[in-house]
Amino acid sequence: MIKTPYLLFLGDAPDQLAAKVAQGIKDWRPDNAVGQFRLPGCGADLGLTDMSLIEAKAAGAKTLVIGVANRGGVISKEWKKVLVTALEEGFDLASGLHNLLADEADLVAVAAACGRELHDVRVPEVDYPIANGVRRTGKRVLAVGTDCSVGKMYTALALDIEMQKRGMKSTFRATGQTGILITGDGVPLDAVVADFMAGSVEWLTPDNDDDHWDVIEGQGSLFHASYSGVTMALIHGGQPDALILSHEPTRTHMRGLPDYQLPSLGALRDMALTLAQVVNPACKVIGISVNTQHMDEATALAYLAELETEYGLPAVDTFRQGAGRLVDAIEAI
Amino acid sequence: MIKTPYLLFLGDAPDQLAAKVAQGIKDWRPDNAVGQFRLPGCGADLGLTDMSLIEAKAAGAKTLVIGVANRGGVISKEWKKVLVTALEEGFDLASGLHNLLADEADLVAVAAACGRELHDVRVPEVDYPIANGVRRTGKRVLAVGTDCSVGKMYTALALDIEMQKRGMKSTFRATGQTGILITGDGVPLDAVVADFMAGSVEWLTPDNDDDHWDVIEGQGSLFHASYSGVTMALIHGGQPDALILSHEPTRTHMRGLPDYQLPSLGALRDMALTLAQVVNPACKVIGISVNTQHMDEATALAYLAELETEYGLPAVDTFRQGAGRLVDAIEAI
Repeated sequence: MIKTPYLLFLGDAPDQLAAKVAQGIKDWRPDNAVGQFRLPGCGADLGLTDMSLIEAKAAGAKTLVIGVANRGGVISKEWKKVLVTALEEGFDLASGLHNLLADEADLVAVAAACGRELHDVRVPEVDYPIANGVRRTGKRVLAVGTDCSVGKMYTALALDIEMQKRGMKSTFRATGQTGILITGDGVPLDAVVADFMAGSVEWLTPDNDDDHWDVIEGQGSLFHASYSGVTMALIHGGQPDALILSHEPTRTHMRGLPDYQLPSLGALRDMALTLAQVVNPACKVIGISVNTQHMDEATALAYLAELETEYGLPAVDTFRQGAGRLVDAIEAI
Repeated sequence: MIKTPYLLFLGDAPDQLAAKVAQGIKDWRPDNAVGQFRLPGCGADLGLTDMSLIEAKAAGAKTLVIGVANRGGVISKEWKKVLVTALEEGFDLASGLHNLLADEADLVAVAAACGRELHDVRVPEVDYPIANGVRRTGKRVLAVGTDCSVGKMYTALALDIEMQKRGMKSTFRATGQTGILITGDGVPLDAVVADFMAGSVEWLTPDNDDDHWDVIEGQGSLFHASYSGVTMALIHGGQPDALILSHEPTRTHMRGLPDYQLPSLGALRDMALTLAQVVNPACKVIGISVNTQHMDEATALAYLAELETEYGLPAVDTFRQGAGRLVDAIEAI
């Protein structure tokens, strides 16, 4: 568990896009973002107060989060100077970089000397159990996609925010690097060893109040040849009561697989529901979440209306329209 | 890749069952088994020549294989003495034990000093790629089960032997510890990190002659809450041309999951075929393999005949009847 709140390290990010993890933290958990730390030449700006390490410490920040991609896969000397000083000033460090903090001997040594923690959110920090399939109390909702990267995390975060607004009990359960950095906790599912995947999802979504909803971040797709096993483990470990179908209608092939077409939402519905009912016979598909960012508003709304007619389910773009109608459907269960 | 042939170490196995990995090697790859090495009090006997390390070396053995479970999860002093001497005599060591050879400092040191290799077949030795889903040349057959441990490995080994007998080109592709020790090569799929599962299966079953069959060892079950993700990766990484449905009809619940019933063979057929056709639209279900060891011969044959009528597929127990009719069905593709 990463200690919050954070000082968001943007380093020398060339542009806003390079800082999208930090942007996600600021957008979805503004209370976690005390301020931003930028190096000379930084092209990103989250609109947060620029703070020195000492100012951020005084403002209550506990962890310096590297919310930015680095160049060339190396932690530069300029970054290193800040990271070492941060440890000395009493910050933990958290990172989703491919090259690990734990592989940097100087950071490891300074962290040990200062009694600070290094969190590489790509690496599991827990020995997860093997899944036992025992039914758990509480409710769970999971978004499954026709493809990878169609907006499942965004949908889950939007659902969680909407449920909180309504005074419902809910927890966003992160299963990927960005989600873990946003919330400070979760399972880096794509880095878990095969035998323990479903068990890690059970661990992440334990028994809870009968009216509590775990909003589980989806990963991959049952129809994606590279990552379908991860999606399967999410369904069988997550025991969802409610499934949401996620889709990006302008995509011409599966992400990274030029020879593969996306399945229809109907094929996804049938496959995901059959599999989910193995572990939770009461599971229902309750709605469709569409990423319409590459459509103009009129086309998007017409497309969503078509889906509603075809599938008899609420179909929304949670970015354009919020997650209200999906939460209505969840409340109706 | 483990160097063959082997001297099979049975240690102080209390009974024959404890030596089932060694038995598997002797049954399926007799050419790999030069002899057996037993300690005083050993209750197992494979019917191979008892050999000293020096005799086995002279007979050509290259690797001492620990083909037996150890007691209490510890490598005892009695074992250790033999293992160290084996390294000094020029043997590599291979093991499927939970506690790893690589975690024993003395074995690591002696192996390094003698230039020998330690193979823990539970641990991946390769950096597998992420699956790319590109169609490969050659043919592949995979057994999928209604449950774990219903005889998928046995079926695959029997298929491979039968294909070899007929002069067909085939290779058994091991995906579990026992299979890897039997053949000397393979992928310990349950120990592979999630993102690389399907890629490891692609790696294991590369482009081949158009008339060559990879006989892929199955794992888990699409309907098993603990391990379904592994099965999914096998289907999507393996791109099977032919699927065989495996079943154990007397089981009262899913292995290790007392609350779960086994699915019907029809449910398995529909689910596995739909998923396999994502990566190989030409995939067909070609037969049923049933483990009838807990039925008498008459009951077993009647049951198999019933399945043939119900599913319109050859249904055989490969242990009782051999894999001939399944290979007929494969040849008919």
